[in-house]
Amino acid sequence: MPRSSSLEPPPSRREPGRRRSGRPGHDADSVLRVAARVFNERGYDGTSMEDLARALGVTKSAIYHHVTGKTELLRRSLDLALDALFAVTREDASTSGPAIDRLENVLRGSVRVLVEELPHVTLLLRVRGNTEVEQHALARRREFDHLVAGLVREGIAAGEIRDDVDPAIAARLLFGMVNSIVEWYRPDRGLDADELAESLSRMAFEGLRA
Amino acid sequence: MPRSSSLEPPPSRREPGRRRSGRPGHDADSVLRVAARVFNERGYDGTSMEDLARALGVTKSAIYHHVTGKTELLRRSLDLALDALFAVTREDASTSGPAIDRLENVLRGSVRVLVEELPHVTLLLRVRGNTEVEQHALARRREFDHLVAGLVREGIAAGEIRDDVDPAIAARLLFGMVNSIVEWYRPDRGLDADELAESLSRMAFEGLRA
Repeated sequence: MPRSSSLEPPPSRREPGRRRSGRPGHDADSVLRVAARVFNERGYDGTSMEDLARALGVTKSAIYHHVTGKTELLRRSLDLALDALFAVTREDASTSGPAIDRLENVLRGSVRVLVEELPHVTLLLRVRGNTEVEQHALARRREFDHLVAGLVREGIAAGEIRDDVDPAIAARLLFGMVNSIVEWYRPDRGLDADELAESLSRMAFEGLRA
Repeated sequence: MPRSSSLEPPPSRREPGRRRSGRPGHDADSVLRVAARVFNERGYDGTSMEDLARALGVTKSAIYHHVTGKTELLRRSLDLALDALFAVTREDASTSGPAIDRLENVLRGSVRVLVEELPHVTLLLRVRGNTEVEQHALARRREFDHLVAGLVREGIAAGEIRDDVDPAIAARLLFGMVNSIVEWYRPDRGLDADELAESLSRMAFEGLRA
């Protein structure tokens, strides 16, 4: 059964510490994941609660059991993606050691988050800031970008990163690579997050030249 | 005067070989450029000919003087972006010499195209394939991606490019960097296409490690 039509989330969706409502966890998570997928397909503005109910195979009132409406689904999906990305920046390997290694951990962790939370990060990356919820998400994205640029800057100061690239541009290009993953990654094609993180990290730090 | 409200294109828009209608060139180019910008802002589906007329400060019939309608504007904008990208792949420096140098020329040329044709390439990168025109553009994008992946593969075979990355993934990550430019590049902030191409090329081939 394709994942998108299942109310039962894959095992990776059940790790502890995920945001949950008072209902059994997998229900709220699945609603959110399907909502994000439908928002990505139809656009947030073009999606009605009716569309979401149809995609979930439930009634609208079943969705209202979990959330107050479309805006809350958007906010929770964006928060889930952003919380996961910021969690990476608080890992030990992102906060101690040489700056270049901390940067590498943030990059690798971000790849992992993109693969694991694909619909939510995809939604995040398409946000254009038309509403308060989107503005808030964009502000958090900027904060994340500054943090990455700060690591590049520290790495340059420490002589670990080449000093002939602008830290802000380097940070943007690095995350250009990372974020492009949402455009082409398909979970069912046998490429796992670790392999992808390894390739990306190799390209970013050592370059393609043999 | 902001470029977007001007009907007079900047000098770089007037080079020979651009697709033109029988009308004075700058008119058709400007209409197309403003149309692409409005499509990007409001979404193609959400844009009416009325919106375009308002953005151009002209009547709808003045637009119909140049094109048969919205679909033709979309097709021509996407073709303009794709033609410019494919033109890069036919340059001497993209067709002779070591594969890694040809790849570098394609990368640098693509950065230049993105900066010069920003609204058109932005539109191209947002195409999702709902109509025949979009499907056609997506097919040409795939052809371009295959061409890039082919250069990576040749470079690996020649021992010029590291052999521990998958060519298709490397091509996607490279163009993840390139394409991310449409998300953050602002023509008025003093970063020119050559500097950007230089930074990107350095990161891609030599890596960030000092």
